[in-house]
Amino acid sequence: MHGDQALGLWDLGTHPTAAGPPIQSDRPPKRLFSTAHSAFLFGKEAEHAEGFATECAVVTHHRLEAIKDPVTGKTKMIPAGELAEPYVIRPTSETIIGAAFARWTESYRDLPLLINQWANVMRWEMRPRLFLRTAEFLWQEGHTAHETKEEAIAETRLMHRQYEEFLRDHLAIPVIPGEKTENERFPGADMTLTVEAMVQDRKAIQAGTSHYLGQNFSKAQNISFTGRDGTVQHAYTTSWGVSTRLIGTLIMAHSDDDGLVLPPRVATQQIVILPITPKEDSRQAVLDACQALAETLRHHSFQGDPLRVHVDSRDLNGGVKKWEWIKKGVPIRVEIGPKDIESRKVCVQRRDQAVSEKSFTDKGEFIQNASEILAEIHNTLLTRSTAFRNSNISACNDLDSFHAHWSGENPGWLFTPWAGTPEQEDALSKQHKITIRCLPISTDDLPATGSKCILTGQETTTRAIWGRSY
Amino acid sequence: MHGDQALGLWDLGTHPTAAGPPIQSDRPPKRLFSTAHSAFLFGKEAEHAEGFATECAVVTHHRLEAIKDPVTGKTKMIPAGELAEPYVIRPTSETIIGAAFARWTESYRDLPLLINQWANVMRWEMRPRLFLRTAEFLWQEGHTAHETKEEAIAETRLMHRQYEEFLRDHLAIPVIPGEKTENERFPGADMTLTVEAMVQDRKAIQAGTSHYLGQNFSKAQNISFTGRDGTVQHAYTTSWGVSTRLIGTLIMAHSDDDGLVLPPRVATQQIVILPITPKEDSRQAVLDACQALAETLRHHSFQGDPLRVHVDSRDLNGGVKKWEWIKKGVPIRVEIGPKDIESRKVCVQRRDQAVSEKSFTDKGEFIQNASEILAEIHNTLLTRSTAFRNSNISACNDLDSFHAHWSGENPGWLFTPWAGTPEQEDALSKQHKITIRCLPISTDDLPATGSKCILTGQETTTRAIWGRSY
Repeated sequence: MHGDQALGLWDLGTHPTAAGPPIQSDRPPKRLFSTAHSAFLFGKEAEHAEGFATECAVVTHHRLEAIKDPVTGKTKMIPAGELAEPYVIRPTSETIIGAAFARWTESYRDLPLLINQWANVMRWEMRPRLFLRTAEFLWQEGHTAHETKEEAIAETRLMHRQYEEFLRDHLAIPVIPGEKTENERFPGADMTLTVEAMVQDRKAIQAGTSHYLGQNFSKAQNISFTGRDGTVQHAYTTSWGVSTRLIGTLIMAHSDDDGLVLPPRVATQQIVILPITPKEDSRQAVLDACQALAETLRHHSFQGDPLRVHVDSRDLNGGVKKWEWIKKGVPIRVEIGPKDIESRKVCVQRRDQAVSEKSFTDKGEFIQNASEILAEIHNTLLTRSTAFRNSNISACNDLDSFHAHWSGENPGWLFTPWAGTPEQEDALSKQHKITIRCLPISTDDLPATGSKCILTGQETTTRAIWGRSY
Repeated sequence: MHGDQALGLWDLGTHPTAAGPPIQSDRPPKRLFSTAHSAFLFGKEAEHAEGFATECAVVTHHRLEAIKDPVTGKTKMIPAGELAEPYVIRPTSETIIGAAFARWTESYRDLPLLINQWANVMRWEMRPRLFLRTAEFLWQEGHTAHETKEEAIAETRLMHRQYEEFLRDHLAIPVIPGEKTENERFPGADMTLTVEAMVQDRKAIQAGTSHYLGQNFSKAQNISFTGRDGTVQHAYTTSWGVSTRLIGTLIMAHSDDDGLVLPPRVATQQIVILPITPKEDSRQAVLDACQALAETLRHHSFQGDPLRVHVDSRDLNGGVKKWEWIKKGVPIRVEIGPKDIESRKVCVQRRDQAVSEKSFTDKGEFIQNASEILAEIHNTLLTRSTAFRNSNISACNDLDSFHAHWSGENPGWLFTPWAGTPEQEDALSKQHKITIRCLPISTDDLPATGSKCILTGQETTTRAIWGRSY
């Protein structure tokens, strides 16, 4: 196991547990891109490698050389120092973490293992989209290894619920938790759980996933241990992650034509105080009143943390400042002018309401209610996005209306009984540029459907959500 | 400016401020690795690109294809989808951040700008060494842009001091702050400040750097603004960073043959309490006493944070547990057995002292003194490493003893008057596999030297520290 891999390079040719330094050479190897130790690619793990094969950033050279173009006379930098074996920048880290787990696991006493890392990963995107699909992105990826199947599945479900709760309670985004079909599963997983969010163009965003990997990776990577009965067994592993894609989801779920709308728990500033200073002689008094209010508010808390309050005392036009904070999505804006000091009132505006709406409130009352207002804003955003999503999921029980649905502009999601094969699912998906987003765990918030598969007519208890996605 | 760059891919051919999506093609381009827009590489920035040219991870393909070897019949994955232009994974991010700065800067009112990011960067290492030189590493990189040269230099020096203080006050590592010579400067910088640490094999580690970039990058990337006088000017920029290399430095500065030795401020656990439970009937009482002690200690603080205390109640052999915490470098170990409960004493052992040393202390007294003991441990480590370093820096005033010095095993550093040219410095460096680590800012802690350059005999006020380094 060499240093590069430990930090995330994913060696294509060498089995990750093999010892020794990386083979590097400035001379072209005899067989270009030969994969001398290709055992790594076989067995279950080949499924994983092949699953990511179409979106790999492949490093083939390790330096640049300046050469002079004989025609133009200009210098350019060209790749040099060809590697004996190409490297793939990690699209995910099961391979790397698994190699470490294999070294750490001797006895059942070493289990369970839990590793979480924040790492940049790279998946080559032909059509990048800011925050949703970029060649490189930051995520957290958790990896666990367990003694039993039951424990590993419980861990997979635990993280699935945590993602659901994080989206709901912090980002004010309702998600549908469910399981991916075999076609949409993480390459190498036995079960992939997902939380699916709908954004305002009615597209789906896979906002987080949690995978039960069974013994597929542990067998390929030899994550084995001596069990309680003295026999050598393979661990059951899981992995799960959310990425900076959540930022894109957040923007597309709540923002409006005036800019960003931030749920209070993730807003950098929850309250911005804007001093109104029309006259020079009252200017300092207004600034002082604003700072005093900010200081008082910071002694109050929302969801266990002190309120995050900012006073914008920049000497800029009031309208410019106000619109800047609207665009930045700050939940509460407070204006204080010379008259408000006398009347002990403040002008409160909320980002979840129209820009024209404002309420003049007694300052003491506002201070007492500030965190309650933040809670209301969170609830408004969550209620609004839940209502929007629910009104854009329709039950569908016959194939004709299923086909017709997708020709509409920005079609919502369809909820159908489903008993088709992976091949049939794939055909329908390709035909309409849709996918089964998930087989929901609960149908409580979903419309009632019939019980016959929309395609095959078979009786089924399986229900599927279909939609376009990012 | 396309999405990939925003997240860190460093496009070789296209100027980073150019608009439009990345050019990608599955077909080989007409001119392999053509750099159609090579303007980017000229001017001052070429120096930067060429400075990193020998250690670049170059991405040339964006997917893998499974092919069957006609001879062996085995499947292997080979690079496919050749890119029309190769990409370099960022070795540092001036190019990317500068492109953003250029878009954000219109008026002097937009300055100063400060961005800090935690990012993985990649520099291809032929001889990787864990924590010190790895192909990929995590660091923080700060980037600033200023209206004036003075402000930018002040920022460069501010961060330089912060790194010095962080190493001294958190890691208990004394460093020599100084300036790099032109030869050792960051490619494209006007001035590179460094903090140099000595580890126990007397090698130097460049532990952090802060660069004054002048207008070199701002001119190449057009980071311009309308100044107070209405003219268009170029900003003065800086960049600075420390990396996971600090972990390697920490390990090599303090550890001993028994394992890690952690300075208290960065120790995950500052105090570990080990219950001694020889008899089953007193077991629970001992465990309870340990938990109660831990809880009390957590209400005390060290350097402004609550004490980090762990009770190791695992049912393992006492010696095994004790050695585990020694190896992990925990500053204070406390043992409590059945007799100690009666006598209200605890057995205290310190990681900065021999394993055999222990003191039986009144429990109440220990609680009162715990944070004081942690402060003492910090000071012991700092004093010890400072003394070690100082005893391994010798003044050297003649060339013969300079040459002779480097043939010794693990030679320490030499401190000399220096007035040589970059070429002369390079020749001496290559001859002895050494470098000028820095021209120290202060000579207060350093031995007295003569005033004639060790090589040229010229009178000089410049003093240089020479050493082997990682």
